[in-house]
Amino acid sequence: MSEFSLIQKYFTRTTPGAVLGVGDDAALVRVGSGMELAISTDMLVNGTHFFPDADPFMLGHKALAVNISDMAAMGAQPRWATLAIALPAEDEAWLARFSAGFFALADDFKVELIGGDTTQGPLNLSVTILGEVPQGQALRRDGAQMGDEIWVSGKLGDAALALAHMQGRLKLDEAGFAATAAALHRPLPRVALGIALRGIAHSAIDISDGLLADLGHILERSGMAAELQFDKLPMSIYLRSYFEQSTGFEQSTALEQSTARQCVLAGGDDYELCFTAPVERHAQLEKISAQLELPLSCIGQIVAGSGCRVYAADGREITTKETGYDHFA
Amino acid sequence: MSEFSLIQKYFTRTTPGAVLGVGDDAALVRVGSGMELAISTDMLVNGTHFFPDADPFMLGHKALAVNISDMAAMGAQPRWATLAIALPAEDEAWLARFSAGFFALADDFKVELIGGDTTQGPLNLSVTILGEVPQGQALRRDGAQMGDEIWVSGKLGDAALALAHMQGRLKLDEAGFAATAAALHRPLPRVALGIALRGIAHSAIDISDGLLADLGHILERSGMAAELQFDKLPMSIYLRSYFEQSTGFEQSTALEQSTARQCVLAGGDDYELCFTAPVERHAQLEKISAQLELPLSCIGQIVAGSGCRVYAADGREITTKETGYDHFA
Repeated sequence: MSEFSLIQKYFTRTTPGAVLGVGDDAALVRVGSGMELAISTDMLVNGTHFFPDADPFMLGHKALAVNISDMAAMGAQPRWATLAIALPAEDEAWLARFSAGFFALADDFKVELIGGDTTQGPLNLSVTILGEVPQGQALRRDGAQMGDEIWVSGKLGDAALALAHMQGRLKLDEAGFAATAAALHRPLPRVALGIALRGIAHSAIDISDGLLADLGHILERSGMAAELQFDKLPMSIYLRSYFEQSTGFEQSTALEQSTARQCVLAGGDDYELCFTAPVERHAQLEKISAQLELPLSCIGQIVAGSGCRVYAADGREITTKETGYDHFA
Repeated sequence: MSEFSLIQKYFTRTTPGAVLGVGDDAALVRVGSGMELAISTDMLVNGTHFFPDADPFMLGHKALAVNISDMAAMGAQPRWATLAIALPAEDEAWLARFSAGFFALADDFKVELIGGDTTQGPLNLSVTILGEVPQGQALRRDGAQMGDEIWVSGKLGDAALALAHMQGRLKLDEAGFAATAAALHRPLPRVALGIALRGIAHSAIDISDGLLADLGHILERSGMAAELQFDKLPMSIYLRSYFEQSTGFEQSTALEQSTARQCVLAGGDDYELCFTAPVERHAQLEKISAQLELPLSCIGQIVAGSGCRVYAADGREITTKETGYDHFA
């Protein structure tokens, strides 16, 4: 089957939200009046971002999800996407499952695939996403202000915990792995939250590389520092069990505790939002949390200086060695 | 050097035409009032689209050029681009030359790099380009009408001829290879022509896969057929020498002639524009050709039916076997 036929069969859907979709030299769209266009590109590579035997349905989901997450982090409404894909060989079963995963998520978020490219080569997925945000209202990394509270959505570290299990660095039971693997394979971008944060958050980012790394980008671009309370970080029961030894779970070793701590602080692939907002927005953010049925946790605050310090419940500072993240690495 | 530092060093320039460039979760741009946004994505893969030892400066040029060419084919003004790049290993010398080639062309066409991704993996270059075109004025593939004249810009087949030489399928002399290799490695997108064709051409496409394949897309989407005159096809002196045996060039063999014919009709990578326009625009198109100092050749016409027939000067139809292009392959 030719490239043209493959695109026709697996990647061509109606695109009522575009002037012109797949099939010409370029797609055409109209951006709403008073809107800015947000654009982001991510590339996922076999062996670097996923295992060679990864389920193609899950890959289709994830390739789009990580891009939609960038729209969420900007407070933008995702609208359109292009997909460039290199495949080692024509594999219709693979393409059928991949496109099913891609379009399942695209449909959930009303994102239209308007163009792209398919070619022969080592497996590589490159998605560009386009979204709309009212002029001047985008959530940026450079707006954090002194005294801002630091918030994160959802729970942290489950994706990294599942990965640690798959890599044999610790062992989860069946239920624990099933629950955390969903975070790794099927991240859900926080688009509704990003849009709700317009006019409220001073800065935002999505957590793709780990809390400390991504919060670090906000701090660097805003010229600020942060103090975090480790016991305020939102964790699943699977992660929390490594730190609360009285819950009936098996006692964990020091090495397991250390791995778990690094999952929470430095583990990537969560795709939750980290954002900062002034203290007077605290109650409003709790209301948004209730409306969206999405936990929002206030985990620390923005202070003067540079870098990020993490404190244990007893006030002791957790060292760089313990966090697993070195800003200067 | 971290991914962040590499992007900072090689891919971050000021972007006065964007609200926000490289360095946040997404870039932000404002599309002009009354404008549609044209979007296209192309992926170039090592071994499929270029040789493993390809000059990185040339690759930087080409990765962007093929995308700008899609804007030209739409009659759009290219404005912004994102670049996703997978590299087997960090190679600063390679990145320095690649980005130099990319930005040299970007500067020529005033295209701003506003975002992207760098990651580890088999060499892969994915560019998404964004351009502006006044609403309703884009040149599409589906607008060819009965009686339209068919035109192409520049010369056809030189890129394929250089490739045939590199693959040992025929032999060029030094001057011939130097001249035709430039067409292969440094294609120049026809942006000014695309913009001049707004309101004049009924349909347009850029020639990336070969004249017959790309004109075929116009015919298919327009529900039309075409008749081409082989001796009207614009060729360099290097290509023409295979068909004119009296010019002092060495006599070419039948096999060489056949290869040369296929370069003109079915050779890719020229990135000239093929377009159709009504007969009454003929004189206007000759004026545009003079203004742009770019040859425009009228090579045939749109007729009823389907498919494309090519005629020799003596009126004989050139067979599919001779053209090297089978529509149903």
